[in-house]
Amino acid sequence: MSDPQSAPRTLTTNPFDADGDTLHEECGVFGVVGVTDAANFVALGLHALQHRGQEAGGIVSHSSDVGFSSVRRFGYVRDNFTRASLMETLPGPLAIGHVRYSTAGSKAAAIRDVQPFFGEFSMGGAAIAHNGNITNANALRRELIERGSIFQSSSDSECIIHLMARSLQRDIPSRMEDALRRVEGAFSIVAMTRTKLIGVRDPLGVRPLVLGKVGDSGWALSSETCGLDIIGATYVREIEPGEMVVITENGGIESSHPFRKASSRFCIFEHVYFSRPDSIIGNRSVYETRRQIGVELAREAPVDADLVCAVPDSGTPAAIGFAHESGIPFGMGIIRNQYMGRTFIEPTEQIRNMGVRLKLNVNRALIEGKRVILVDDSVVRGTTSRKIKEMVLDAGAAEVHFRIASPPTSWPCFYGVDTPQREKLLAATMSEEEMTRHLGVDSLKFVSLDGLYRAVGQAEGRNNKCPQYCDACFSGEYPVKPADMIEQGFEMKAAE
Amino acid sequence: MSDPQSAPRTLTTNPFDADGDTLHEECGVFGVVGVTDAANFVALGLHALQHRGQEAGGIVSHSSDVGFSSVRRFGYVRDNFTRASLMETLPGPLAIGHVRYSTAGSKAAAIRDVQPFFGEFSMGGAAIAHNGNITNANALRRELIERGSIFQSSSDSECIIHLMARSLQRDIPSRMEDALRRVEGAFSIVAMTRTKLIGVRDPLGVRPLVLGKVGDSGWALSSETCGLDIIGATYVREIEPGEMVVITENGGIESSHPFRKASSRFCIFEHVYFSRPDSIIGNRSVYETRRQIGVELAREAPVDADLVCAVPDSGTPAAIGFAHESGIPFGMGIIRNQYMGRTFIEPTEQIRNMGVRLKLNVNRALIEGKRVILVDDSVVRGTTSRKIKEMVLDAGAAEVHFRIASPPTSWPCFYGVDTPQREKLLAATMSEEEMTRHLGVDSLKFVSLDGLYRAVGQAEGRNNKCPQYCDACFSGEYPVKPADMIEQGFEMKAAE
Amino acid sequence: MSDPQSAPRTLTTNPFDADGDTLHEECGVFGVVGVTDAANFVALGLHALQHRGQEAGGIVSHSSDVGFSSVRRFGYVRDNFTRASLMETLPGPLAIGHVRYSTAGSKAAAIRDVQPFFGEFSMGGAAIAHNGNITNANALRRELIERGSIFQSSSDSECIIHLMARSLQRDIPSRMEDALRRVEGAFSIVAMTRTKLIGVRDPLGVRPLVLGKVGDSGWALSSETCGLDIIGATYVREIEPGEMVVITENGGIESSHPFRKASSRFCIFEHVYFSRPDSIIGNRSVYETRRQIGVELAREAPVDADLVCAVPDSGTPAAIGFAHESGIPFGMGIIRNQYMGRTFIEPTEQIRNMGVRLKLNVNRALIEGKRVILVDDSVVRGTTSRKIKEMVLDAGAAEVHFRIASPPTSWPCFYGVDTPQREKLLAATMSEEEMTRHLGVDSLKFVSLDGLYRAVGQAEGRNNKCPQYCDACFSGEYPVKPADMIEQGFEMKAAE
Amino acid sequence: MSDPQSAPRTLTTNPFDADGDTLHEECGVFGVVGVTDAANFVALGLHALQHRGQEAGGIVSHSSDVGFSSVRRFGYVRDNFTRASLMETLPGPLAIGHVRYSTAGSKAAAIRDVQPFFGEFSMGGAAIAHNGNITNANALRRELIERGSIFQSSSDSECIIHLMARSLQRDIPSRMEDALRRVEGAFSIVAMTRTKLIGVRDPLGVRPLVLGKVGDSGWALSSETCGLDIIGATYVREIEPGEMVVITENGGIESSHPFRKASSRFCIFEHVYFSRPDSIIGNRSVYETRRQIGVELAREAPVDADLVCAVPDSGTPAAIGFAHESGIPFGMGIIRNQYMGRTFIEPTEQIRNMGVRLKLNVNRALIEGKRVILVDDSVVRGTTSRKIKEMVLDAGAAEVHFRIASPPTSWPCFYGVDTPQREKLLAATMSEEEMTRHLGVDSLKFVSLDGLYRAVGQAEGRNNKCPQYCDACFSGEYPVKPADMIEQGFEMKAAE
Repeated sequence: MSDPQSAPRTLTTNPFDADGDTLHEECGVFGVVGVTDAANFVALGLHALQHRGQEAGGIVSHSSDVGFSSVRRFGYVRDNFTRASLMETLPGPLAIGHVRYSTAGSKAAAIRDVQPFFGEFSMGGAAIAHNGNITNANALRRELIERGSIFQSSSDSECIIHLMARSLQRDIPSRMEDALRRVEGAFSIVAMTRTKLIGVRDPLGVRPLVLGKVGDSGWALSSETCGLDIIGATYVREIEPGEMVVITENGGIESSHPFRKASSRFCIFEHVYFSRPDSIIGNRSVYETRRQIGVELAREAPVDADLVCAVPDSGTPAAIGFAHESGIPFGMGIIRNQYMGRTFIEPTEQIRNMGVRLKLNVNRALIEGKRVILVDDSVVRGTTSRKIKEMVLDAGAAEVHFRIASPPTSWPCFYGVDTPQREKLLAATMSEEEMTRHLGVDSLKFVSLDGLYRAVGQAEGRNNKCPQYCDACFSGEYPVKPADMIEQGFEMKAAE
Repeated sequence: MSDPQSAPRTLTTNPFDADGDTLHEECGVFGVVGVTDAANFVALGLHALQHRGQEAGGIVSHSSDVGFSSVRRFGYVRDNFTRASLMETLPGPLAIGHVRYSTAGSKAAAIRDVQPFFGEFSMGGAAIAHNGNITNANALRRELIERGSIFQSSSDSECIIHLMARSLQRDIPSRMEDALRRVEGAFSIVAMTRTKLIGVRDPLGVRPLVLGKVGDSGWALSSETCGLDIIGATYVREIEPGEMVVITENGGIESSHPFRKASSRFCIFEHVYFSRPDSIIGNRSVYETRRQIGVELAREAPVDADLVCAVPDSGTPAAIGFAHESGIPFGMGIIRNQYMGRTFIEPTEQIRNMGVRLKLNVNRALIEGKRVILVDDSVVRGTTSRKIKEMVLDAGAAEVHFRIASPPTSWPCFYGVDTPQREKLLAATMSEEEMTRHLGVDSLKFVSLDGLYRAVGQAEGRNNKCPQYCDACFSGEYPVKPADMIEQGFEMKAAE
Repeated sequence: MSDPQSAPRTLTTNPFDADGDTLHEECGVFGVVGVTDAANFVALGLHALQHRGQEAGGIVSHSSDVGFSSVRRFGYVRDNFTRASLMETLPGPLAIGHVRYSTAGSKAAAIRDVQPFFGEFSMGGAAIAHNGNITNANALRRELIERGSIFQSSSDSECIIHLMARSLQRDIPSRMEDALRRVEGAFSIVAMTRTKLIGVRDPLGVRPLVLGKVGDSGWALSSETCGLDIIGATYVREIEPGEMVVITENGGIESSHPFRKASSRFCIFEHVYFSRPDSIIGNRSVYETRRQIGVELAREAPVDADLVCAVPDSGTPAAIGFAHESGIPFGMGIIRNQYMGRTFIEPTEQIRNMGVRLKLNVNRALIEGKRVILVDDSVVRGTTSRKIKEMVLDAGAAEVHFRIASPPTSWPCFYGVDTPQREKLLAATMSEEEMTRHLGVDSLKFVSLDGLYRAVGQAEGRNNKCPQYCDACFSGEYPVKPADMIEQGFEMKAAE
Repeated sequence: MSDPQSAPRTLTTNPFDADGDTLHEECGVFGVVGVTDAANFVALGLHALQHRGQEAGGIVSHSSDVGFSSVRRFGYVRDNFTRASLMETLPGPLAIGHVRYSTAGSKAAAIRDVQPFFGEFSMGGAAIAHNGNITNANALRRELIERGSIFQSSSDSECIIHLMARSLQRDIPSRMEDALRRVEGAFSIVAMTRTKLIGVRDPLGVRPLVLGKVGDSGWALSSETCGLDIIGATYVREIEPGEMVVITENGGIESSHPFRKASSRFCIFEHVYFSRPDSIIGNRSVYETRRQIGVELAREAPVDADLVCAVPDSGTPAAIGFAHESGIPFGMGIIRNQYMGRTFIEPTEQIRNMGVRLKLNVNRALIEGKRVILVDDSVVRGTTSRKIKEMVLDAGAAEVHFRIASPPTSWPCFYGVDTPQREKLLAATMSEEEMTRHLGVDSLKFVSLDGLYRAVGQAEGRNNKCPQYCDACFSGEYPVKPADMIEQGFEMKAAE
């Protein structure tokens, strides 16, 4: 019934990831109802959300003729869900989909871990796609196995479908409420029954989820607004923290708030890095927020230099903002190779920094002899920053100044982002000066937490008593206790 | 978690199967313990059992380093389980495997239906491979779903693993006993835990299962003895009807009889058609039994003719027996193409019987002008028999006499053989004379049921009060009530 | 333009071939004109000829809309040329095809060596498929390269297309005559232009080629008649030695004899082993010839025994003949596995003769305690014979007597059969008695050369002054001097 | 020997290419000698040159053990030439490679058209990789076929290898000179023998080719300097127009100028679009040239607006230059999707401009209400420009002003760039005002030809008597007569 361990797959890998020096959003979710061939819309939506999960994707659809259909694949959406022969196997006016990274702990990726997950209940089937992370999954899993549930995947998200199977409620949305009340952590979920599209966000609203209108009669749910844009849908509103919407094929929407009320703690890192710059979050353009971070940085940490360059691609808006505010010209000092992909075989020891060269090349003619400001989105382990600094110096830069569009990342995320263990985070073990020396740059400055809050529109900065966002990765203040991690030995920051 | 419906696969198909004119054994099972790289032995054993299930195969192994590993694939064992890169993913001294046909009802084959099935219980994992059919699976499935089990496959066999998950017993063999006591029908099962290889047969012993010794310290379980031969194992004995054996890695065997005692009803069709001629069942050579059926046929239904030919390949031993008993020469009047495979594109209407031609060619020079006896193993729908008769007549045969090495097949099997619905069985709707006219042959004779029993060694023929075998497909006397089928409207033969 | 060496492919291999203990026909050729979708007919014809070349196959077709189309693939015809998407790329009423083994010398198989070969000439394109071997290919190749021809393949057959390209003749059939007059050796060729199907045999007619009628207006050329049978074509006649036929789309046939007249020397081994038993050669059934060889063997080399068994599959007709003539019963003592394919990973040293076990299993119950006569088609290196003898003795046979349906194979073939070097042929280095001891059997007898000639219908046996067949592999009398091989050091038998 | 037509492949396609609205460089070439595992270096070099040919790639290597080895594949370098199992088949210290687009005329791509091309001559083999286009290929091909050459591909470049095969010179570099003296048009060639790496540029030097030093003893040839950067090679110099360099394994370089002297006419469009911005051509940074074009544009065609945006990615440097010169802020108004790939299935008519949406999304929040200047590299057919304008207006832009970083493209290129027929070029049939109306934008301005020449460093602008560059696509002044095209009816611009 299940595969205890499938043959491992070699996955497309980012050479920067060799040492885990990036943060990954773990998932994107998308759903559509009330259109012809909903799965084609979902494929497009997932394509637009591919940056949220590049490893694998899946789509479940339902048609009254065929019932539920499902396809789950490793690889990019564009490589799998564009073949007519495959898309024909996903008929019907209702479909949901999911893109994902592998979870941190798993060694070998397995197709059984790819969502959406499906379960057949006595009142019919349901499929769910989950963005986020359940912080009490281990305890739930033990309890469910003890009672006779058989798990198919190593995914925490599977707990939800088993909890639903055991609920005594008579309809699926009610079973879902039952299940989610047992679950702790962050979740933005898109789910479906034979006739309904369902969207839910956890009470804190850590992960995004938006609602759009498709044509006259259809509706879409998407992690980000860029998923609505690609299908030509109109952005309606965000699903609220703690809200569940149930949309029927004929277009009716019912909204409820089944969970205990809490104040919103949206993930601030979505603004800094995860979301696409053309998405709109909380009625703010992500691009504009990032540009504004650059402005804040230029004010907080000015430096006399000749050129502002972005570490492509995510540092570009902040670099533009920094250049504009500082009056120092913006230039493309580092060029990204558009054909990045699998790791090449290293020809010999002669090539240093080959991994970085595959992704980036320095625009030597521009940089030579200049004092260069490099704007990057974040520093995780610092390994990439070192390599980029070396490339820029090799190309003849006179000075290198790093400006980072986020505060120091010194705590891991347990709400759906794949971060290294705390001791691997550079900022968890070093002060700003130590990091400056470690990276060997002329200066290194991070935007302040208050500066970041100002850039996202909180003119007064962070409300330290009741922070407006989840900023645990910067502050160590976790809005939901990470129970599984504590069980495994994680030590939270002492209360101040 | 599960796929409600995967993308359908185009499977290798036998052109004779286009109209379902063959009977399929649905499964073969194999397991080994106490050897290095057990999965390699299992691959060989499954290869030898490939005739019992050509559609798909799977292997689960366990090693103390890696835990459980699993690979399940569509296609032949030789095409999947021969690649070193794949076999390396199946380490350990304990492994089981399964080959299967698709079950009759399923429309699209799905990898999730391929066994062995695996479940993680609180005391550890277990995998099972099942040959046979559960006759009360529908009721069990409904009950299990009602209580919160989530089914992954459309296979009846999955009920067993869910029943095990819900058992209150503290060890896996005991949970398996619990589960199998709820199950009705035919089952020969090979299962494994982390340290134990388990074999079980249902109380009637409908499907075969044999035990062999591998080298000094290893043991094997196999559907047929030909699976032992290929790995050089020594045949020890059959697992008895109703027996469960639990074999540990150090070689200890425990035998128990957990079910209510019943008298054996082994499937007589295993002798006629399913098993390989070089296998030994009940201490009888299958080849010799088939040859003896030919002898019985020659005595019961002699005919004046020039040549005895087999419909290859399964009719050959009976044809040799018929020729020997009758004194009429045996010849290869029909030649089989060794490269049979996928169906070719029909070039035009000009080619009649192309499907048959792909598999067989008539040896025109031998047959021309002769009165030919064609010995075949069975008549199911009669469509193939008609085509072969036409080919033989086209080649210039003077007369065509069919002699069939089994009684008329007039009832479907519900114990693990894929038979057409009753109304599609030629013998269910026609008398011998009607069939003779329908097929357009000069004569048609089936061996009698008593003749068949004599050929399998029952000198007195069939004991009608207490038949020695399951012969439901000929007699309509079902030793286990087919509950699911009756629920779906199947009418059993009225008691006489 | 060409690949100097492509990435090698792992090919489906026969475990018996590991040590080269079989003889391979190197090619089969097929062509059709005057039908709709000729390529579909060619695919069927090649499927029927698959035994003549299992490694790769190719088809070229021509339609007036699309011009020439070509597909060449490694693997079985049934696995490649059955997909509609592929066959649609081969439109038109005229097509030819080729199946092949790799030639003896090549290390890595390359798709560029797969025929048909195609060339564009100033008067249009032509494709050719060649069965046989050119004995002066090395010299021709050197000469052509010296003059500026660029070879694409390592195949000798490519010389023909370059010779055609350099001919000064104005039409393609005439260029082909020009080219073939320069060529020495054995060739049965099927070729095509935009409008014509061409068939040619070398002056000695070493390899077979037959003509058939397809429906009212079509024609087919095939290596063997079994290729005609599968497409429902009517056998018309053999192409004569030294004959060229040019068939136009409207059905006209022109025959010519462009080569110097010679007396026919058809390959006698085609009767013994290469051709399919249901083919007809020289108006004789191959099956009947082989059965008759068994009769001759039983007369020449009788032995007191209990059972006659064939080494499957090619030894079966001779075994039936031997049994019939001797009165000793015929039985299936060795059973062939129908699912043979790639080599499995050897699990451990515990399994002896695994390679043979994958292909064959001994029917222990039949053989135990019996004096067994094993009839095989030939002895090449003797390695397989030893393994089979061991298996039969392990199964408890009391005596093992080998009877071989051909004379001792003591010379290599240079006319299109892949034979080991002379020193590897068992019969080239040992007498019959030495071979008997080497194989460890109770007796070993070969049919005599005269007995073989009688079995193919030469009642007086071999005409030693002017042999009716090419029997160089037995006699060392080569009807065409093997120039390339002599250049490489091969020593012909001294004239007597 | 050759495939007249292989089964067509569905290629990765750019949705913008559906109507041919881009210009493609047709090839990139790369070669290395004097390093361990040269093919790994070539793979990296080709990866860096992927923008010059995305359809297919090939590598030929030579080692003294194995001789020549070759792998040619459709698809990206990163997807093919990164697998260890494949790269191991390309051993040796000397290798060359090629990436390509399909040539304009071919309907179905075929692997036989993928370079490098290889030929075996009497003095040994040679492989060549060609960037450019031969303008008298048709005539050469006819002549070669007439004399008995057999072409394998539909590629013009194959003429070179046949001309070499027929040369009477005794060594390969001399044969290459012979061959190239017969050839007209543009060529930058990287070739190899068993021991030598060869580089050649045509007398006008239309296509680029640079020389680099790899470590102590190795040398590399690359179409662009970015190919040197990725392998850590040091840029040495450009191969001169009309120069041939022959580099031996021990590192010796011989330079010669075998062709008639001519004044250089490097392709100016390499600066505008084809080359990578981080490459250096003629000692000028391509990025800086493009930025400077933006500066020229801002001077020549200023406009009052709120925002300067690039049409990504190639318009970005010019947009930065325009913004800097004009003082109007630069912003990312159009965001590129990094996961572009195969065309998706259009879900319904509801989605307009889906093709563009797959590649780009408008940053609505930035653009809304603004007067936007869009800087693009060129206008070919104008179809994409229209779609982008619509997207930008849909997003609420107040005005849209196009500024194009090249003069109007009104003539096709015959020197290695895939351009539409002249009548499909928007600028060939419309004036600037007509184009402005056709595109529906508020204004449209192209940089002047003199402005472009100034941006590439010719302070005086274009020397109309003796232009410093090939600018035929803008001026219609073809430095080499396009003989094949004239034969096919192309009409050159009348002399003024």
